[in-house]
This record gives sequence, C-alpha cells and structure tokens, in this order.
Amino acid sequence: MDKERLRQQMDFCREIDKEKEVFRQSYLCSGNRRENDAEHAWHAALMAVILEEYANEKVDLLKTITMLLIHDVVEIDAGDTYAYDVEGLKSQAEREAKAADRIYGLLPEDQRERMLALFREFEEGESPEARFAKALDNVQPVMQNDASGGKDWREKGIHLSQAIERQKRTARGSQILWDEVSKPMIQKNIDAGNIIGDVSLEEV
Amino acid sequence: MDKERLRQQMDFCREIDKEKEVFRQSYLCSGNRRENDAEHAWHAALMAVILEEYANEKVDLLKTITMLLIHDVVEIDAGDTYAYDVEGLKSQAEREAKAADRIYGLLPEDQRERMLALFREFEEGESPEARFAKALDNVQPVMQNDASGGKDWREKGIHLSQAIERQKRTARGSQILWDEVSKPMIQKNIDAGNIIGDVSLEEV
Repeated sequence: MDKERLRQQMDFCREIDKEKEVFRQSYLCSGNRRENDAEHAWHAALMAVILEEYANEKVDLLKTITMLLIHDVVEIDAGDTYAYDVEGLKSQAEREAKAADRIYGLLPEDQRERMLALFREFEEGESPEARFAKALDNVQPVMQNDASGGKDWREKGIHLSQAIERQKRTARGSQILWDEVSKPMIQKNIDAGNIIGDVSLEEV
Repeated sequence: MDKERLRQQMDFCREIDKEKEVFRQSYLCSGNRRENDAEHAWHAALMAVILEEYANEKVDLLKTITMLLIHDVVEIDAGDTYAYDVEGLKSQAEREAKAADRIYGLLPEDQRERMLALFREFEEGESPEARFAKALDNVQPVMQNDASGGKDWREKGIHLSQAIERQKRTARGSQILWDEVSKPMIQKNIDAGNIIGDVSLEEV
C-alpha cells in the first residue's frame, strides 16, 4: 500500500469536516436554526435515493449521490452564496473554482481529477445526473422553508421574480417534483403572503 | 404517477430532517462543538467514496453509501447511544428496532422493506458492505477526536478497554484503515494521556 496516497486521502477527509461550519440561509423544518452545508448535502443525497424514480431521465444513482455529497465542499473557502444575492452570484463561479483547485487538490491525482470533473459536471448542469442533483438541491430547501412556515422567505422579503430562475432548474431535472412538490409549496407560500408573488408561477 | 406514494416519500424526507437535531458525543475536528447525526452520516458516506479501495473485500459502493446515509435515522426516536454507555447499549437494539419500524414505516411498502433490510444488514455487520460501513463509522470519529486533541476522550476519561471492542470492528472492515489510521491515532492519544491505556492495543 502507498502511505503517501493514504495520507493525502486522510488530509482531504479531515479538511472537509469544515463544511459543517459553513451555514446556509435555509432553516431546518423546525425553524430552530439555519442548517449547514454538510447537513444539506446529506439530506439531498438521501432524497436522491428515495426520489430517484422521478428523475426526467434515467440516472446513475451512485453518480448523482456522489455529486450531491461533494457539491458544496468548495464553500469551505468560497462561503455560501445566498440564492438571491445578486452581487455574490457574480463572483461565485470564480471563487468556487479556486476553492475546488485547493480542496480537491489535497487528493491523489486520480481522485482529484475525478472529483473535479464531477463537481464541474454538477455546476454545468447538463447531464441527467447533474440535472436531477440540481433539482434535489432546490427541492430540499423549498421543502424545509415550507415546513418552517416560510420563515426564510418572510425574513428576507423574497419576491417570486427572484426565485423563479433558480426554481426553473427543478423542472429540468424532475418535472414531477416541480409539478407536485415545489410548485404547490411555492404557490401555498405566495397565498400565505410568505413569498411576494410579483410574477406568475405559470412562467416556469 | 401515484400521488399517495409521493406523499409518503415526502413525509419521510421531511421527517428525517430531525436527524440534524440529534447530537453525538464526538466533536468537530476544530473542537468547537459536538456534531450531529446528519453531519456524521454525510462525512462517513463521503469517506466511503474516497477510501473504498481499502475495504477488506470488494464492496458495492452505492450500497455502502446508502447504508451510511440511513444508519442513524433511527436515532431520531431512539437518541444517540454513546459508544461507551454500558446501560444505554443494553436497550439500544430494542429502541432502535421500534424507531426503524415507525420511521421507515412512513415510506411506501417497497422502499420501507428495502431500507429496513439495509438497516438490519448494517446492524448485523456481516456483509462486506456492512463491515466496511462500520469501519468508516468508527474511523470518522477517531479521526475527529484525534484532530481535536482527544477532547472527547479526555473529558470522559475513556480507558482503552472501553474502546477496544468497538474498535475491533474497524479491522474487520478494513485492515489497512485500522493499521494505518485508527491504531496509530489511538496510540498517539494513549501516549499523550488522552486515552487511559489500561490494556494493550496489540490485542485488537
């Protein structure tokens, strides 16, 4: 066995522990506190196992789960960029690419290349797995936001026009999860006044 | 599509959010706070992706990861049982079996049976995937405990004789991770006085 290889792998395994200290804007279903990236990745990955049958195209489940497990590792350096933070979103790609180079760079070369490729595939969002992973990356916080009584949307005064571009991605990965889960939840929260319905949900 | 089926699946996806509020004894590597079950499951699952080559026997990685993602769902009802809590360990199996029935019982029948079978396979620890998953379930907290300067071991005054039975499982799933990761880390913490070395590590 190659001790240097194992040392590099363990350095990576230790480094990613920091993802537990990167907090997102989304609240837990209970509304007790915001959640962190590691919790979000776990939840979205497990939802992929349960909801696989609703992907628009047949997906390689292992690939989808692996994407979801790693997709926010870059935020250890780049921080969480809130889905509706216009300024932050401009520099997000550059910050995250730099972070990917450093963090995946801890791994042995073969794994570094494989993880970087998987992360980029997720970011591009074109393969069946990336589309489905992105759908779950959206459905999970919508579900939690709805369960907490729209707490995050209300606090931020979110308008539907801010959310709609991001939400369109859900339908690209899973028309069923859009039609039957996210869309009705969002409509319910518009009706309740938790989201400001400045555009029509039918545009999606 | 079967709306009742999707409703059951979403009920399960929402229910498991509570796993983020079940806290373990292990500290993060930083020592800043204890970690919760969702974070632990994410970390162990991602370590399975990176360290797969060290399993004693060839494993089905998707199965291993799925086991790790779901293995602590039962603690939503049964609570976390500390690895060295002798009284708690006696009632653990019964409490967790009841929790598994309720929580996996939220799922449609086919998924309920599949998840229960996977959870039981993990608990029995006999298949190659269960053995490797249990190895990672041990290596991950040892790694964090070591990184935090043995904080949890020191606070609890842990003796090696308390830890050794549990640690034996690591070698059953991965001799290399035992020999090259856990064992040297434990030895280092015995030498530093963080673990009380009342028996020999060579017994494992």
